[in-house]
Amino acid sequence: MSNTPSHALRQAIRNGEHRGNTSGYAPGFVQCNIVILPAGSAHDFLRFCQLNPKPCPLITSSAPGDPALPLLGDVDIRTDVPSYRVFRDGTLQEEVSDITELWRDDLVTFALGCSFSFEEALLADGLDVRNVSAGVNVPMYRTDIDCAPAGVFDGKMVVSMRPFKAAGAIRAIQICTRFPSVHGAPIHLGDPALIGINDINRPDYGDRVTLQEHEIPVFWACGVTPQVALESARLPFAITHSPGCMLVTDLRNSQLAVL
Amino acid sequence: MSNTPSHALRQAIRNGEHRGNTSGYAPGFVQCNIVILPAGSAHDFLRFCQLNPKPCPLITSSAPGDPALPLLGDVDIRTDVPSYRVFRDGTLQEEVSDITELWRDDLVTFALGCSFSFEEALLADGLDVRNVSAGVNVPMYRTDIDCAPAGVFDGKMVVSMRPFKAAGAIRAIQICTRFPSVHGAPIHLGDPALIGINDINRPDYGDRVTLQEHEIPVFWACGVTPQVALESARLPFAITHSPGCMLVTDLRNSQLAVL
Repeated sequence: MSNTPSHALRQAIRNGEHRGNTSGYAPGFVQCNIVILPAGSAHDFLRFCQLNPKPCPLITSSAPGDPALPLLGDVDIRTDVPSYRVFRDGTLQEEVSDITELWRDDLVTFALGCSFSFEEALLADGLDVRNVSAGVNVPMYRTDIDCAPAGVFDGKMVVSMRPFKAAGAIRAIQICTRFPSVHGAPIHLGDPALIGINDINRPDYGDRVTLQEHEIPVFWACGVTPQVALESARLPFAITHSPGCMLVTDLRNSQLAVL
Repeated sequence: MSNTPSHALRQAIRNGEHRGNTSGYAPGFVQCNIVILPAGSAHDFLRFCQLNPKPCPLITSSAPGDPALPLLGDVDIRTDVPSYRVFRDGTLQEEVSDITELWRDDLVTFALGCSFSFEEALLADGLDVRNVSAGVNVPMYRTDIDCAPAGVFDGKMVVSMRPFKAAGAIRAIQICTRFPSVHGAPIHLGDPALIGINDINRPDYGDRVTLQEHEIPVFWACGVTPQVALESARLPFAITHSPGCMLVTDLRNSQLAVL
C-alpha cells in the first residue's frame, strides 16, 4: 500500500471526493492520457502507437478485460479517472465519473504519456513555460504531417507550442530528449507554415499564448493526435479520459527519464 | 604500443612524413587544438578554459616542462603536431614543424576539443554538414558575447555555423549534447543579429556556406575563441598548432560521449 500523494489523490477520485481537472495535483507524479477500446481494435491501436511514438507515447496497456495497470500503481481503471468520455459509433455520447457499469470482458486500456511530465522538467530547470506562467491551456494545432496509419487509425499530427528564446529552445530540446515516453524532443521549431500551421495566433485547440520579442515557437507532438485518430475511426465503442482529467499514477516523472 | 591509425599517423607526423592538414585523416579518433604557454600564464589560461567551457573545452593539460600527454597516447608534443605557430609578444613569428629547439622546462601544453569530433557524429547520423559536403572550411563569426575573463585572457566568443532544417537542428542539438568536451550543444540558432553577427554571408574566418530554403543557421562555440584570447593577451611567448594541423590522438571520438 502506497502512501504517495498520487495514491491519496487516486483514492479521492475513486471515492468521488475529487472531480474534474488533475493539472497541478500530485506534483512529481506521472499523469496519463487514457484510451479504452474493445480487443478487436486494440491491436491496430497498439500498432498506431508504435508507429507514431512521438504523438502516441505508450507507457503501458492492460490485458483484455483486466481493469488493473500494475505498472502505474493499484489502479482500477473503471473508477480512478475523474471524468470519462464515452463514444459510440465515433460520437461522444456522455461524460461519466465511473465506468463500472460499462465495463466489458474485452476492453483494453492504453495509458499514454502526457506533457505535464516534461513541463515539470522544464519548469524545474528555470525555463518559462508560457502556458503555465500565463495560466492558460497550451495552444495546439493540427499540422499537415501525416501519421503512419494502422488499420482504421489514421490522421494528421497535432502539436502543442511553447515559445522560447534560442538558448531556451536548445535547453528545452536537451531536457525533453530525456523523456521519450512523454513526447520527447520537439518535432519542429521556427516557421509554423512549414508544418501546415497558417496562423500561430489561432490554435485549433487550447488557448493562444503571446510570442515575445526574439522568441521562437517550439512544437511538440501532442497527445490530442491519438484522440483525433480515435474519433475519426468511428469505432462502435470507445472510452477516453475527459480533457485535463487524467489518470494519476504512482510512477514518478523522474522515473521516465531514460538517462 | 598502439596499432591504431591515429598512432601510425602521429608517427608519420613525428618523422616528417606527413605535413599539413589533418582533416579527414585517422577517422574516428579525436584531434585536438593545442596551446603551449609558460607556466606563469598557465593558471590564468586554465581558469579561462574552465570559465568558458563551451568555446574552450579542455580535454587535458600537461605538467610544466613535460612534453607528454598520456591521456591522448604516446604523445611528444614537441614533434607530433604537423605545423606549429610561434608567437612572441603576441605576434606570429614563424611556422615550424618541430619545437624541440624551442622547448623549455616551464612550458605547459593544453589540448582542447575540436569540432571534427562532433561533425563526425553528425555525419554518422546521416545529417548534411554543409561545410563538409561543400568541401570548404566552416564559416566562423566573431559575436558580441563576452567571454568570462581570467587574468590577461579575455575577448568575445567566436562561433561556427552549420545550417539545418528544423528537424536536423533538433537532432544536431541532441547529438552534440553527448559531446560536451568538443563544444557540446549549439549556443544559438536562428537570427544571427541576436548574437552580434551582421552578415551571415561574410564570416570573419573560414568560408561562406549557402543557406538553403527553410534552413536555420545553427551556431556552436568555436575553438578560435581561445586563440583570439591568446593573441590579444600578447604574451612574451606562446605556441599553438597551425589552423587545420591538429594533434591526432589515440582517444576515440566515441569515448568523449558522456552518455
